[in-house]
Amino acid sequence: MSFINDDFMLKNKTGKRLFEEYAKDLPIIDYHCHLVPKMIAEDYKFKSTYDLFLGGDHYKWRQMRSNGVPEEDITGSTPDYEKWLQWARTMPLLIGNPLYHWTHLELKRYFDIDKPLTEETAKETWDKCNKLLARDDFSAQSLIKKSNVEVICTTDDPVDSLEYHQQLKGFSTKILPTFRPDKIVEINKETFLPYLESANVKTFDDVLRFLTEKIEFFHSVGCRLSDHALEYVPFGIGDAKAVFEKKVNGGEVTYEEENIYKTAVLKHCASEYVKRDWTMQLHIGALRNNNRKMYEKLGPDTGFDSINDLCIAEKLSAFLGNLEYDYVLPKTILYTLNPKDNFVIGTMLGNFQKAPTAGKIQFGSGWWFNDHRDGMEAQMMALANLGVLGRFVGMLTDSRSFVSYTRHEYFRRILCNMIGKWVEEGEYPNDKASLKRIIEGISYYNAKEYFKF
Amino acid sequence: MSFINDDFMLKNKTGKRLFEEYAKDLPIIDYHCHLVPKMIAEDYKFKSTYDLFLGGDHYKWRQMRSNGVPEEDITGSTPDYEKWLQWARTMPLLIGNPLYHWTHLELKRYFDIDKPLTEETAKETWDKCNKLLARDDFSAQSLIKKSNVEVICTTDDPVDSLEYHQQLKGFSTKILPTFRPDKIVEINKETFLPYLESANVKTFDDVLRFLTEKIEFFHSVGCRLSDHALEYVPFGIGDAKAVFEKKVNGGEVTYEEENIYKTAVLKHCASEYVKRDWTMQLHIGALRNNNRKMYEKLGPDTGFDSINDLCIAEKLSAFLGNLEYDYVLPKTILYTLNPKDNFVIGTMLGNFQKAPTAGKIQFGSGWWFNDHRDGMEAQMMALANLGVLGRFVGMLTDSRSFVSYTRHEYFRRILCNMIGKWVEEGEYPNDKASLKRIIEGISYYNAKEYFKF
Amino acid sequence: MSFINDDFMLKNKTGKRLFEEYAKDLPIIDYHCHLVPKMIAEDYKFKSTYDLFLGGDHYKWRQMRSNGVPEEDITGSTPDYEKWLQWARTMPLLIGNPLYHWTHLELKRYFDIDKPLTEETAKETWDKCNKLLARDDFSAQSLIKKSNVEVICTTDDPVDSLEYHQQLKGFSTKILPTFRPDKIVEINKETFLPYLESANVKTFDDVLRFLTEKIEFFHSVGCRLSDHALEYVPFGIGDAKAVFEKKVNGGEVTYEEENIYKTAVLKHCASEYVKRDWTMQLHIGALRNNNRKMYEKLGPDTGFDSINDLCIAEKLSAFLGNLEYDYVLPKTILYTLNPKDNFVIGTMLGNFQKAPTAGKIQFGSGWWFNDHRDGMEAQMMALANLGVLGRFVGMLTDSRSFVSYTRHEYFRRILCNMIGKWVEEGEYPNDKASLKRIIEGISYYNAKEYFKF
Repeated sequence: MSFINDDFMLKNKTGKRLFEEYAKDLPIIDYHCHLVPKMIAEDYKFKSTYDLFLGGDHYKWRQMRSNGVPEEDITGSTPDYEKWLQWARTMPLLIGNPLYHWTHLELKRYFDIDKPLTEETAKETWDKCNKLLARDDFSAQSLIKKSNVEVICTTDDPVDSLEYHQQLKGFSTKILPTFRPDKIVEINKETFLPYLESANVKTFDDVLRFLTEKIEFFHSVGCRLSDHALEYVPFGIGDAKAVFEKKVNGGEVTYEEENIYKTAVLKHCASEYVKRDWTMQLHIGALRNNNRKMYEKLGPDTGFDSINDLCIAEKLSAFLGNLEYDYVLPKTILYTLNPKDNFVIGTMLGNFQKAPTAGKIQFGSGWWFNDHRDGMEAQMMALANLGVLGRFVGMLTDSRSFVSYTRHEYFRRILCNMIGKWVEEGEYPNDKASLKRIIEGISYYNAKEYFKF
Repeated sequence: MSFINDDFMLKNKTGKRLFEEYAKDLPIIDYHCHLVPKMIAEDYKFKSTYDLFLGGDHYKWRQMRSNGVPEEDITGSTPDYEKWLQWARTMPLLIGNPLYHWTHLELKRYFDIDKPLTEETAKETWDKCNKLLARDDFSAQSLIKKSNVEVICTTDDPVDSLEYHQQLKGFSTKILPTFRPDKIVEINKETFLPYLESANVKTFDDVLRFLTEKIEFFHSVGCRLSDHALEYVPFGIGDAKAVFEKKVNGGEVTYEEENIYKTAVLKHCASEYVKRDWTMQLHIGALRNNNRKMYEKLGPDTGFDSINDLCIAEKLSAFLGNLEYDYVLPKTILYTLNPKDNFVIGTMLGNFQKAPTAGKIQFGSGWWFNDHRDGMEAQMMALANLGVLGRFVGMLTDSRSFVSYTRHEYFRRILCNMIGKWVEEGEYPNDKASLKRIIEGISYYNAKEYFKF
Repeated sequence: MSFINDDFMLKNKTGKRLFEEYAKDLPIIDYHCHLVPKMIAEDYKFKSTYDLFLGGDHYKWRQMRSNGVPEEDITGSTPDYEKWLQWARTMPLLIGNPLYHWTHLELKRYFDIDKPLTEETAKETWDKCNKLLARDDFSAQSLIKKSNVEVICTTDDPVDSLEYHQQLKGFSTKILPTFRPDKIVEINKETFLPYLESANVKTFDDVLRFLTEKIEFFHSVGCRLSDHALEYVPFGIGDAKAVFEKKVNGGEVTYEEENIYKTAVLKHCASEYVKRDWTMQLHIGALRNNNRKMYEKLGPDTGFDSINDLCIAEKLSAFLGNLEYDYVLPKTILYTLNPKDNFVIGTMLGNFQKAPTAGKIQFGSGWWFNDHRDGMEAQMMALANLGVLGRFVGMLTDSRSFVSYTRHEYFRRILCNMIGKWVEEGEYPNDKASLKRIIEGISYYNAKEYFKF
């Protein structure tokens, strides 16, 4: 029997039935990912097993480093197959790690490979994948088509031309942009001033006008979603214009001033989102680029990020409360990278829920370092205990990979297993209509109704 | 078979036996709740199913909002049955939420209703409950009598006349007040100055005298318990009298000064509690009234509170340590709203335990947003690993509802299930005498010995 | 059947097989403990059951206090048997507490006692242990020999003569020192100035020279490991010499200055560790001596410590990042006392992993208040999800007791049970070679390769 078999992650009969009957065949709405639109538009063909699986995957690099693999064999000039072999050697030690499951799901679903990846199977796996990747039906678009994906939302800078999204208008899967204006929000990052220049933004009014125009442009290309990465949750009321002017005139912006500027800019964005019925995503709690030496060598997103642990409740409450009070709180998804915040987020939602949108404020699915069985279960447990699980918009890949759609399958299996267990243990009635609605909702329909892509 | 059947929440044979033989029939000591004494004294009759279940229950309102129900159908002028129907529609989506269990336990135990509440069963449930609520044996006192409650401790302001508690002296259940002087502690809340005036308190000495007198008065009516809501744990040593005078003379009291004032006032209270062998409850970590717009519309306790996430260990240690050093640390129950604090609280207890009271410092049962299987298990797991679970004083309802006594049953089932599992998995011997003592203790006898009502 | 039987803590067949075949018979590398070297060198003979089990065990004292036992019967002048009896009375109420398991494991493995310890069995247990302890094969060295321990690392101050370690060079178990220079790091503790005097340290250069010399001396006696207790993680760059001079001249050292001094001193140590391929242990998050009255009476390490809850991520990142940037980050083990930090630590590792050492940065095993099934599982769950569990160096006792080696057995049982469950539930293939490597590695070989004692 294959490691990835029909019952994978399904440990009770009810869960199996729920997955088989309700979850398995529904389309995917992948409302947050990092795919490169150009690769889709140009129907990229992968050069090798390495190119598809390992070339840009900093999750795997990180674990290879943890396993003592030299950097040369990870991001250096070692031949690709040797790198793959190092990855294969690392795999068996990754017991309990989601990469172990994801990798085998991807190998099984796209390449029909049954044998676990180890040093021994590295070569045959490499060869088989290489052979298939050479075929036309393994191109970027083909992989998407095979994956039953209805919508993909990429992550895009306001200055992006969105040309590839526009080229892709006839494609069977909707490829939509997401508005992520971090560079014009992060006033104290080194990217701020160069960004202003490239965007021809000179005054604070220009900032707001730039954002409004770009939101409108993104909207015209089908965008219905924004995304904001927040190291900490900002809140401050004051003269944001003065802070901006201080910055562009070479002044040093304090933490308090930074809060004022960010609050004003995010609030302006939020007000524009509300007008267009967009959803605002807040990704809270990453601590990035912790290893300066490696940052200088490899740049960002290379496997040197981790989880921050600041107190977030009071500022998050103040920020959302301020928007709500001024009628500019859009549909919002709150993600936290630190599971200690699960109960804070799970209760924060409830303060701002409001008709007519069911589940207007959402608790985002287990994110990044929480994107595994334990993390998903912890997030859903918190949401269920503190809110209405049945309104959850469910899973997203947050991925740069064209074979990561299996993570939706993974999520659905974990969801069905969890709910199946509750039913079998008598914590919820075996009421088929309600279970169908809940499972189908979280797998697909809730997102469809919520985002209105 | 009814959803609420004999085995509800009991997933192993030993657990079933423990519940059946030891826990099920013991009386209830509900040492912390928010019942209105007047309603008991006047033997309130409920006007309808809505009145009993939905009229004042902000837990349910919150989830209805989360489900997209318009405010009009929750707290507005929509007819009561329509509101009930909206609640019934929300129920099936509340999978994994304690309200799903509580509601069905209440419907089963008090109204013998077996069918899960859904849109389809909303009408028959409404009618059946209405019919029974019209009977004399469904009045406030009748519901208490049916519930096998030995003691009820309400929550009362120092200025309360306690007339209803005094009227109720002959009632079969002891109805005792709890001393909750938050308004005279919270020096920076808008309620502070008006409260001083109403209590005729002019000087800092008046504050202390007022508290002492009221504690003595409460004691004479049978009170043995205080309660303090702490947004954060205060600690500061300084001139509290000067802070008080600054405040009443219109000055602005800083955070540090607030800490000094609060520490002094709480310490004075504690010293009075020690004299009378009272227990001091500290409820730590709520972040209240997050939605100002709704606060202005509906006031407090309407479903807009959440969990705070401050660091608490150092101040809590300093506060309790200061009291202990000066011989004025009473029996104390520490509750936290944020489960991230469970291990902090669980170890803090151990620093201040002291004969002759077994379990002098208690870790309060899963509170408010933690009042569910996962929250209870997490609290008991922390307590067991870090302290003496066998001395735990157990459950309280913290409720405004006359049918919430089923939460004691719920708790006992979860307790018996957890301990039954440990026994069946060989983590504790199947020693009947010890198990009897533990289960009966946590369900009833520990509280009886601890509080000495 | 004995409470402690072959299947203790093993709840699935695969787990039993893993324990039996791979884990059970491997030697122990106890790389961090608090045994007194003199007692080993002089082959201490225990005076009584009390002396071995209760005399110095503040874990047990704490729980006896929690159970309402008078201090007199814990640390006072009550006869030893009466104290033992009070401990026996406390035991049955400690359901779910690791002391319940540890005590019975110790009684079974060293004294072949099957009956659970209760008031009823207190006397026969006392007598049987006393009788055996009178024999020569129950001396300190004999207990170590019986326990299959290959290496023991004690915890030692830099000024220690290490004479007992040197005397023990021929002993069948390697008894090695660990370098713990807390007293010269903690510039604001009352121990600082007296320590400088005793060590004849007058200038900041003396501090560094003293540390270098002592590290070299410890190295010559076989030390390969340091240990640092950090109430908070320090980080600050500045003039450490000036801070030192301020201190020795009677000035008050601020929090910021303390950070600067500590960072400089720890960094100097780290640079010396790197030269010698030592491992640096950081124990983060204890809040000690919370009860001043009892501290004045009994001193430190008497059961009045607890868990702190500060934010640690940013400073820990800055501290480790600074060392890494300057090429002086040694092999490091990060322990946290607060389980809320598990995911922070679990991701922090990944930022600084580096060949050639597999698992160069380690997440320390469940420490102190986390040294139980739930704590161990939580630590391993975090590590598995976020890093490479297969490279974990595993368990240590952190104990003052000569019979605590059973905690390695306890850990191995919990490890095998957890992994066995994953295999039986289909989350990892039943691949015997990989499972053997993982279980044997975590139980023994990883530590052996990592520390190179």
